[in-house]
Amino acid sequence: MIIGIDIGGTSSKLGLVADGRVMARARVQTTGHADEHAFADALVVEARHMMAEHDAVVTAVGIGAPNANQLTGLIEMAPNLPWKHDVPLARMLSERLGVPATLGNDANAAALGEWRYGAGQGFDDLLVVTLGTGVGSGFIVNGRLVLGSAGNAGEVGHMTLYPGGRQCTCGRRGCVEAYVSIRGMLATYAEEGGSAVVNDVKGLADLAHAGDHAALGVFAHSAEWLAIALANAVCTTGPRRIVLFGGIARTGELLVAPLRERFQASLLNIYHGRVDLAVSALPDDDAALLGAAALGTLQN
Amino acid sequence: MIIGIDIGGTSSKLGLVADGRVMARARVQTTGHADEHAFADALVVEARHMMAEHDAVVTAVGIGAPNANQLTGLIEMAPNLPWKHDVPLARMLSERLGVPATLGNDANAAALGEWRYGAGQGFDDLLVVTLGTGVGSGFIVNGRLVLGSAGNAGEVGHMTLYPGGRQCTCGRRGCVEAYVSIRGMLATYAEEGGSAVVNDVKGLADLAHAGDHAALGVFAHSAEWLAIALANAVCTTGPRRIVLFGGIARTGELLVAPLRERFQASLLNIYHGRVDLAVSALPDDDAALLGAAALGTLQN
Repeated sequence: MIIGIDIGGTSSKLGLVADGRVMARARVQTTGHADEHAFADALVVEARHMMAEHDAVVTAVGIGAPNANQLTGLIEMAPNLPWKHDVPLARMLSERLGVPATLGNDANAAALGEWRYGAGQGFDDLLVVTLGTGVGSGFIVNGRLVLGSAGNAGEVGHMTLYPGGRQCTCGRRGCVEAYVSIRGMLATYAEEGGSAVVNDVKGLADLAHAGDHAALGVFAHSAEWLAIALANAVCTTGPRRIVLFGGIARTGELLVAPLRERFQASLLNIYHGRVDLAVSALPDDDAALLGAAALGTLQN
Repeated sequence: MIIGIDIGGTSSKLGLVADGRVMARARVQTTGHADEHAFADALVVEARHMMAEHDAVVTAVGIGAPNANQLTGLIEMAPNLPWKHDVPLARMLSERLGVPATLGNDANAAALGEWRYGAGQGFDDLLVVTLGTGVGSGFIVNGRLVLGSAGNAGEVGHMTLYPGGRQCTCGRRGCVEAYVSIRGMLATYAEEGGSAVVNDVKGLADLAHAGDHAALGVFAHSAEWLAIALANAVCTTGPRRIVLFGGIARTGELLVAPLRERFQASLLNIYHGRVDLAVSALPDDDAALLGAAALGTLQN
């Protein structure tokens, strides 16, 4: 069995994973600890508790976290986590639990989870794009996760969609993430003259279903923008499938129906019929844990 | 020894390659043959002649061609070659010469050539971009050339730079190639109000050196555009180095000096200091032959 750990900004989840299923779950607050060592200790308490309760032999730990670097095993100065320095969480948990631990960024974890257990199974050339607060991605090429020379590959969210366009949180302008993340979609809603109070994608979807023109415009524009971004990504590694993951992808046909059409229209002709779009099929609550566990399997 | 063959629109070159050096050269007209079989026969006559003259034992043939698909071994309906159907040139030459033959597209051949023999040596995560009549590219990831699921990876020239922008020869709009190829740069010269008669990048460079404002503007804009395109490509596979290849890259500091500056400014912060730009160091006349020969080495 593998322990998967998903580090979030406010709380972190642990799961005991076997054969692509989450057998047990636990949760630890990410914030409020004296330091990162106290946080690691708290994770280990929960992990040992799960292991004892299920009489589990654990062979590896996989950890998905924002700003995690798989090559170095460090969480690198994550702006949304409590520690403003590099945290060697893989080593810290490996030492405490006595098994190998692999740390990876959350988008790469999602990519591995989809590849091992989800809509990407069987695809040796795959792209997984996570659509949420930010836009992340993980590339599988020739049956291997692409880490890049410095462990930082797969930032489709920070490819430039419009040179000189919207301000992005990364400090640059026109990034994909500035348009098709939750923040981007809320900005589009304002640009479209939307007047309702809304602060998440579920709210935007409800407005669109109720016929709110600005909200409908958000989904139409987002589909167009995301189609171009995905067609651009196809031009690099030539994946056979793209899997969409995260809250925005789960708004159903509102986004996905126009996206499928615009994506095919945006593709360079040599890719026609050679790449398709799929939406994550993993259970919502388990996807991050399965992804983290999939990172753990890389050790074996 | 390996025979490298570079298929061009009007003429094709053959080279006998050993240890990264071209020991002998020959040339065959690409056009004017009765059919593709007659063309293959003509290539074989020259190959056998070179082999006999140098008493060479050849173990493989590598062929670089436009619109070639390494997975299928076919030149697929190349618009700039005489045959308007798929041509299985790898098999045709392998049968005639009795050694394995590998066919690949010319940009991938250039990428392999740079990786094996040129400015990309020692880089297991590499991107090679060819700047000429078109803009091609080849990605090396984890020490392997990325072919993509259908053998058509690496089309950086057809990533969208400006949605809805300039018409591209591919039928879509706003592609990188519509801006920073030779054709794109000539279009920019006209947009900048250039009045001189010029039809190649050498001419543009001469005008710029003579102080022609429109020509200077072409290089400034091209550097800005190419910087964004390359920064976008970095966001996918995270290469350690990008090698620029082809006539436009050889205009020296006119393009490369502003490009280096704009590229660093365009990069997402996590890539700062982790990717550099280099210009092809292979001898002009030999680069395509060495690249084709590098394709041949994949068989061994």
